[in-house]
Amino acid sequence: MKKNLKNFTACDEKCPVRASLSLLSGKWTLMILFQINENIIRYGELKRAVVGISEKMLIQELNMLVENKLVNKKIYPEIPPKVEYSLTDLGLKTLPIADQLAQFGLENLV
Amino acid sequence: MKKNLKNFTACDEKCPVRASLSLLSGKWTLMILFQINENIIRYGELKRAVVGISEKMLIQELNMLVENKLVNKKIYPEIPPKVEYSLTDLGLKTLPIADQLAQFGLENLV
Repeated sequence: MKKNLKNFTACDEKCPVRASLSLLSGKWTLMILFQINENIIRYGELKRAVVGISEKMLIQELNMLVENKLVNKKIYPEIPPKVEYSLTDLGLKTLPIADQLAQFGLENLV
Repeated sequence: MKKNLKNFTACDEKCPVRASLSLLSGKWTLMILFQINENIIRYGELKRAVVGISEKMLIQELNMLVENKLVNKKIYPEIPPKVEYSLTDLGLKTLPIADQLAQFGLENLV
């Protein structure tokens, strides 16, 4: 995308990059979405898959993702309670972003 | 990318998504890279293009981006000093990530 040096568009509140980052720019957010991916995943599995995240941070991120309609949370009325997470249709649409992050990392960083 | 429910790969310190996020997950980082894009841009222009960013945050982000070799900074020995920013080859490779963020925002959020 070529833009003229003196005539580019400002990224204001209507800017789609800004809108996406307001949902997705957390340190862990896209990593969690990438790890859930197309799976149905239990809390404990997700915790192990996102190495190094604290309990508090993972719960906080998952609540935010559920609230922003990126992640579904399904609670089974069992003892002990079983909780499963999966991506919503909207959440699945973030996977191309995570895939680009993976590709950039793979080709340039790791 | 299909992954088996019980057999997915953990995102540990060798995970490319994690590596990319360690450079790019800031609230403003990908917005700044997207706004510089293929341009050579002066500090003041960039400040106007990233609406709402504080002076302190923009300088901090730019220093981090220069340090991480994503952005070139060129200082002209003039009075007043003229400072121009552009993406490095590595920085240019982050544009597909920003483009995916733009596309996701455009189609789903704004």
